[in-house]
Amino acid sequence: MEEYTKSKLNRVKRGNKRAVYNIDEINSILDAGFIGYVSYIFEGNAIAIPMAYGRTNDKIYLHGSTGNRMLLSLLEQKSASMTVTHLDALILARSGFHHSVNYRSATLFGTVKKVDDPKEKEMALKCVMDFMMNDRWEYVREMNEKEFNQTLVIEITIQTASAKVRNVGVNDEPEDESLPIWAGIIPIKQIAEMPVPDEKMDKNIEIPNHVLEYYEKHK
Amino acid sequence: MEEYTKSKLNRVKRGNKRAVYNIDEINSILDAGFIGYVSYIFEGNAIAIPMAYGRTNDKIYLHGSTGNRMLLSLLEQKSASMTVTHLDALILARSGFHHSVNYRSATLFGTVKKVDDPKEKEMALKCVMDFMMNDRWEYVREMNEKEFNQTLVIEITIQTASAKVRNVGVNDEPEDESLPIWAGIIPIKQIAEMPVPDEKMDKNIEIPNHVLEYYEKHK
Repeated sequence: MEEYTKSKLNRVKRGNKRAVYNIDEINSILDAGFIGYVSYIFEGNAIAIPMAYGRTNDKIYLHGSTGNRMLLSLLEQKSASMTVTHLDALILARSGFHHSVNYRSATLFGTVKKVDDPKEKEMALKCVMDFMMNDRWEYVREMNEKEFNQTLVIEITIQTASAKVRNVGVNDEPEDESLPIWAGIIPIKQIAEMPVPDEKMDKNIEIPNHVLEYYEKHK
Repeated sequence: MEEYTKSKLNRVKRGNKRAVYNIDEINSILDAGFIGYVSYIFEGNAIAIPMAYGRTNDKIYLHGSTGNRMLLSLLEQKSASMTVTHLDALILARSGFHHSVNYRSATLFGTVKKVDDPKEKEMALKCVMDFMMNDRWEYVREMNEKEFNQTLVIEITIQTASAKVRNVGVNDEPEDESLPIWAGIIPIKQIAEMPVPDEKMDKNIEIPNHVLEYYEKHK
């Protein structure tokens, strides 16, 4: 299966020339981030909460406190939806109507279960940390039993998904192109600034490679 | 009213020392962005979609095509929720458990109505554009009737809201602080790169001040 099957749930209705159902392309959008907006229903209201996540194959892992209202709601409703978006540019057209942004946005829908098996749970927590910063897991103090038990991990198995991607320039009406109005794009990106060591740390501890590499890649 | 009243809907349950109910502070989080995650329920599934927005007092404006499934759903359910988050830093602790991010995240709940009055609708569209780029509205080609009629504008009146803010450093267990593990924060921010003029534009049109000012402020 290289594409998600289109259904009422995942079909992109508006601007469908920007629709993406290809699984690899959707995964690349998911893998370029680590914070997703997970939606749940609380007393009839839909609410979206930003959550750290990790992905392995068709599984998305989320973690939180064992009392996390949102995670508990997802377990109860047995399904979840998550949206991950990257903003790439502002599109400044000659008309207000054609103002837009370039972006990559994926929305997935899946079934939810709690991860109870200790090995699986550890693997899921490592996956979430890898998405935040690759390799960091190898360098931190090992998790103790109390922390492990205080952490709730849930697994979303992706059932279907779709994405919308806009990655073109200004798209004005042809008759507007000669107007004396500046049009163009402003690229937008999220960057990392120089890491700031914790003041309580021994001054002889040098910044490790996995942190430097993150900074070099994202600065 | 300086604070939103806490209710089951907006009360921050986990990490409530980070909870914010102050209206000015919540507005400052909303005003620092222009893309929010609007949640709606589609056939029993909660879905979050990134949307451009603008705010004036207790009103949030969204716009889209008259066929936009999400906007039409919001009008039908007469209520909406939107979350706006700014990621400010990665928090790299000595333990995996205390890894975190610094962020400012506001979630609002409100009632929804369609904006039909032409003056109000124009004001709302200007507000949304101002949130993307201040002053841009003054420089674009005036909206024509066809565009105006193709655009659906909805107004969310904020009924309640809350925010969570984390803006402190590494918070490890005291007994971990002497471990030989690098800990610290990596500031994260969203930046703008140099504006790229549309190729179809007359080369004599200089980049205007409102675009330059945006770039200078966000680079």
